[in-house]
Amino acid sequence: MTGTEVLTGRVADENGPWLADRLLELGVELAHITICADREADIDAQLRFLASNGVDLIVTSGGLGPTADDMTVATVAAFCGVELELDTELESTITDIVARWARKRGSDPDLESVRVATRKQAMVPVGATWISPTGTAPGVVVTAESGAPTVLVLPGPPRELQAMWPAAVETAGVQKAIAGRTEYRQETIRMFGLPESELADSLRIGEDTIAGFDALEITTCLRKGEVEMVTRFEPDGAATYDAILALLDERHGTQIFSTDGATVDEQVAALLSGRRIATAESCTAGMIAARLTDLAGSSAYVAGGVVAYENQAKIGLLDVDAALIETHGAVSEPVAEAMARGALARLGTDIAISTSGIAGPGGGSPDKPVGTVCFGIALADGSTRATTLRLPGDRSDVRERSTTVAMHLLRRALRELTD
Amino acid sequence: MTGTEVLTGRVADENGPWLADRLLELGVELAHITICADREADIDAQLRFLASNGVDLIVTSGGLGPTADDMTVATVAAFCGVELELDTELESTITDIVARWARKRGSDPDLESVRVATRKQAMVPVGATWISPTGTAPGVVVTAESGAPTVLVLPGPPRELQAMWPAAVETAGVQKAIAGRTEYRQETIRMFGLPESELADSLRIGEDTIAGFDALEITTCLRKGEVEMVTRFEPDGAATYDAILALLDERHGTQIFSTDGATVDEQVAALLSGRRIATAESCTAGMIAARLTDLAGSSAYVAGGVVAYENQAKIGLLDVDAALIETHGAVSEPVAEAMARGALARLGTDIAISTSGIAGPGGGSPDKPVGTVCFGIALADGSTRATTLRLPGDRSDVRERSTTVAMHLLRRALRELTD
Repeated sequence: MTGTEVLTGRVADENGPWLADRLLELGVELAHITICADREADIDAQLRFLASNGVDLIVTSGGLGPTADDMTVATVAAFCGVELELDTELESTITDIVARWARKRGSDPDLESVRVATRKQAMVPVGATWISPTGTAPGVVVTAESGAPTVLVLPGPPRELQAMWPAAVETAGVQKAIAGRTEYRQETIRMFGLPESELADSLRIGEDTIAGFDALEITTCLRKGEVEMVTRFEPDGAATYDAILALLDERHGTQIFSTDGATVDEQVAALLSGRRIATAESCTAGMIAARLTDLAGSSAYVAGGVVAYENQAKIGLLDVDAALIETHGAVSEPVAEAMARGALARLGTDIAISTSGIAGPGGGSPDKPVGTVCFGIALADGSTRATTLRLPGDRSDVRERSTTVAMHLLRRALRELTD
Repeated sequence: MTGTEVLTGRVADENGPWLADRLLELGVELAHITICADREADIDAQLRFLASNGVDLIVTSGGLGPTADDMTVATVAAFCGVELELDTELESTITDIVARWARKRGSDPDLESVRVATRKQAMVPVGATWISPTGTAPGVVVTAESGAPTVLVLPGPPRELQAMWPAAVETAGVQKAIAGRTEYRQETIRMFGLPESELADSLRIGEDTIAGFDALEITTCLRKGEVEMVTRFEPDGAATYDAILALLDERHGTQIFSTDGATVDEQVAALLSGRRIATAESCTAGMIAARLTDLAGSSAYVAGGVVAYENQAKIGLLDVDAALIETHGAVSEPVAEAMARGALARLGTDIAISTSGIAGPGGGSPDKPVGTVCFGIALADGSTRATTLRLPGDRSDVRERSTTVAMHLLRRALRELTD
C-alpha cells in the first residue's frame, strides 16, 4: 500500500483490513501488510522485502493518480523488469470516462487535452493485464518470471479498489498465484457482558480437553462492549469447532447472542418486524435512533424519537413530571422509565427505549460518577423497566457503550415479547 | 506492529496512524509501516527489512501479553542479539498491578500464582530500559550496537500505548535515535464545497509561480465532503506557506472555512455560545444531535431535538401541517422549513436545523432520486430558509454527508447572526 496521507496519520488505511478479509475468504494466507509513502525507493524496498519472503502474490493499493507524485505502476514495472507502453484502448477508455464526467458537470471537454492529461494512466507494463477503471485509474496484473510473485496493482480510493476487486481476482495472473490455496471455513461467535479474561479461561480449558484444538485459528476481540470470537479452520476441523461451541455455550450460554454472524442490530431489526419503536435519548442524544435507522428498511419499524438533552425537553416533549426530576434527578431510573413511557405514548409505538446518564467529563458526583447511565424500556401493555450501569471510559466511550447496551436491552425485551 | 487480529481484517490498526502523527510532531520522518501476525519468523523478517533500510528507530506495538502466542519481546531480543533476563523490580510492579485489579473485582489474589502468571511479562532483554506498564505489559527500549536501529517495544492496546508514549520518548535510547531530526511546522487548511480537482489546479499554479513550493510537503484528502490540506515545512518555509495560503484564499476564499486547525464542529460550538439549538431530523435520524453533543460542554447550548422518521412524528411532535406533506411530499423545502420551525417553537431555542431526505436504497423517484436531501433552518426572529442537495453515495454516505452539510449550514447561519 502506498500513500503519504496514510503514512502521516491523517487517513486510516481502509484497504489493508478490507483486502485481508477478502483474501481470507479466498483461503489465501496474508503474511505482511506494509505501508509507505509515494516514493520510488520505499515502494521498491517493500516489493523486494515481500518477494524475498517468498509470497506468491503482492497486492498494492494507491499511487495511480494522474500526477507525477503517483508512481506505483512505474515502480512495479521496474521491479518486474519490464518496460511501460501506452495502451491505446485503455487510453480511449479513460478519456471517455473523464469526458463523460466533464459533460455531467456541464463543461464541454477538449478531448485532446483530456487525452494528454490521462496518458500517464494508460501506460501499462509490457505483457500485463489491465483491469477496467471504476474511477480513472486502471488496475494492472503483472506476472513476472517463474519464482517471482505476481503483482496486482489497484487504486487507493477504497470505493474504486473494492469495485475492481472481483475482476482482479478473475484474471489469469491472480488465479495462478493463488492456485495453491486451502479453503477455510470461518465462524463468528458474539458475546455481550462477558469479560475477555473469562473467555480466555474457557479457551484454555478447551485447549486441554478438546482434541484438535490447536489446528483451529481463534481470534478474540473486544469491540464496544461486545466480545467477538472468530474461528478459522479447514473443513475437517468442523467437529472440533462444534465441540468448542458446545463448551462455550455450556459456560457462557446467556452471554452468547449470536453464532451465525448476525449482529445485534440485525437481530433487533428482525425482532421489530411487525412492531414500531420510539426512542427517548438524553446522554446518547440521537445515537440510538441513528443506529436503529442505519439499516435499509428501518422506516418500517422506526417511528421516531426525542433527543431530550435539557430537562425542559424531557418535560415538554416527553411529559416527564418536573417533580420526578426534582426528587430523583434527571439521571435516575424513575426518570428513564418516564422518558420511555412518554416516547411510547407520544408516538404510539409498541416499544420505546430511553437513556439518561452522565457521559462526562463534567457532571459527575460521588453518588453518580461519570459513566452512570440509566436505561428505560416501556411497552404497549403499560409495563416499564429500568437498569442502571456504570460504564468505563471517556465521554465518547460512555456514549458508544450506552448505545450498544441499549441495543442489547432492546433485544432482550423484544425476545420476551416474542416468546 | 504485530497482531493476527489486525492482519485478518477484523480490527483496524489504530496505532499506526497515531504513532505516525506523534513522530511527525517530533520531526521524525516515518519511512515504513508494517503489520504482521504474531509469528516469530514474520516479526523477525520485518525487523530485518526495516534495519536493512537504514532506519534509526523501530517502534513495535502488540504481542506483549502473558500468553505464549505473544512473542514480540523475545523476537526483538534475538534480533538484537541479547538474552532475556527476569527483572525482579518489574516483576513486583506487574504483580502489584494484577493484584490490585483482582482486589478491585472483589477477589483475594494468591500473590505467588499471580507472580508465576506474570513472570513472562517481566522478562527484559539484557541492557534494555523498561517503561512502566499502564496495563500489565511493560514497554522496552533496546539499544543495539552502533549502526543498528534502536527498537522501542510497546503494547498493542491503543490506550496503553498512548499512555506510555511520553515516557518512551524520554528514554535515552529513543532520544539518541531521534537526535538527528528536523523540527517541522504543520498547518491545516479545511475547505467545504470545493472539488479536489480544483484544489489540484490551484496547487499546480502555486508550483509554477511560488518560489520554494517544492520544499513544502502538501497532502490533500477528502473526508466526508470536506477537503483537508495539510502542509508540513521547515521553519524557513513559512513565507512560502503564506504565499500558498494567499493564493488559495484568492481562488477559493468562500470555500475555506478553517486555517487554524479548528473543525467545523468546534466553530459551530463557539458560535453557539450564549445561544440554544434544537434539531428536527428525518433522514439523519439523530446523527446531527449526536454530533452536536459529541463535544464536552454541549449541554450549554443543545436543548434537544426530534427524530421525525415517520410523517406522523413530523405532524405530532413538530406541528408540521399534514396538508403540507400531502401537497409537497415529506422530502421538500416547505416541510423541512416547517420541521425546523416546529423544533424551534417546541424547544424555545434561538436556532433549529432540520433534514428530510431519501437516504436509499429504496424510496427514490425520477423527481427525487436517492440522495436528495432538504435542509431547513429556523431562527428566533421567525425567518426560515431551506436548501436542497443531491448527495452521492450509498445510504450511509448520504446520511453522513447530510450531517456534515448541516454543520456547515449552521455555521453559515450562525455567522450571519453574529456579524
